[in-house]
Amino acid sequence: MKKIILASKSIDRKEMFERAGISFNTLSISVNENEYKKKISDPILLVKELAKAKVMEAKKQVGDRKKDTIIISADTIVEFQGQILGKANSKEEAFTMIKSLKNQTHNLITGLAITEIGNEKLIVDYESSKVCFSDLTDEEIHSYINSGEWNGRAGSYSIRDKASLFIKYIHGSSSNVIGLPMHKVFEILKVEFNLNLLG
Amino acid sequence: MKKIILASKSIDRKEMFERAGISFNTLSISVNENEYKKKISDPILLVKELAKAKVMEAKKQVGDRKKDTIIISADTIVEFQGQILGKANSKEEAFTMIKSLKNQTHNLITGLAITEIGNEKLIVDYESSKVCFSDLTDEEIHSYINSGEWNGRAGSYSIRDKASLFIKYIHGSSSNVIGLPMHKVFEILKVEFNLNLLG
Repeated sequence: MKKIILASKSIDRKEMFERAGISFNTLSISVNENEYKKKISDPILLVKELAKAKVMEAKKQVGDRKKDTIIISADTIVEFQGQILGKANSKEEAFTMIKSLKNQTHNLITGLAITEIGNEKLIVDYESSKVCFSDLTDEEIHSYINSGEWNGRAGSYSIRDKASLFIKYIHGSSSNVIGLPMHKVFEILKVEFNLNLLG
Repeated sequence: MKKIILASKSIDRKEMFERAGISFNTLSISVNENEYKKKISDPILLVKELAKAKVMEAKKQVGDRKKDTIIISADTIVEFQGQILGKANSKEEAFTMIKSLKNQTHNLITGLAITEIGNEKLIVDYESSKVCFSDLTDEEIHSYINSGEWNGRAGSYSIRDKASLFIKYIHGSSSNVIGLPMHKVFEILKVEFNLNLLG
């Protein structure tokens, strides 16, 4: 049975893997995201390049000895009216992000990269979903920000938690909106890496 | 501060309330669902009537003494090609449900009823979302059914868990697909019951 490494620091991705009943280990990978953001303005290309950089760095760290090990990495951003919104660095920045997204529809884009130790194959893909927020007063946004949920999340919200109160609808993959398009992980592992998670 | 009672046995609804940071108690309510299903063939009318019956039964049980207490109830079904799919009673029934839904789009419909102790007001509403499954082999469906996740779920799946592997996309409320349209709960409590969950 092949082993899986999820090369991600995201608690949301880890939880999704756990809830899907996947047996895996995590590896915390850092790449210089700002460097990529300076060079790449196209949101889809950016998340694909970041996911690829993370998975290749993870592959290097794991080394050649661990055969039959699949490595999965991802990067998520919010795209709104041509602007790329990543993770906020402060409460004030998070407030501004949520305020700009209220009563509007934005795109949640995740880049996904999968490779295997001892295998040259590298699959890089992405998924984009539309998310529509309700209208919110400044007081409501402050109350939301004070919950701390914004911290560490692209676009400053977590759809499964308090933000469920103001997310009207999504068009697209519901797991992508949490940070990883699980159906795509399932398909790629099955077709490209001979691993069936429902096997 | 008003108190909230969630009159539901669903672990998914309870978890959503917890994750949204809502302070609440639960009350387990039983109504004779089969009686309603025999009488009502329209899916939207059915879930609305079931949610209403549950909330009114809960109101009776709580009694008049607990003022400032809001009661929320819901009922969820899957509608596919004119057929109403509720919870499966066996593995075999669950298998048949998932097999009929694979590679197709169905509607996930939740009826929602909210009232308050010492207040005649009763709001009954519903939300419908489209859910699209990937294609699945019989072996994959068997593997999914053996996880036990089908048990107690309308349509025999749980989008937040293993079923994330074969849900391609949704069009509509992402919390509704788990069993309760949280943005609608937020709006109704704010507008109709003077309670702001982001207050």
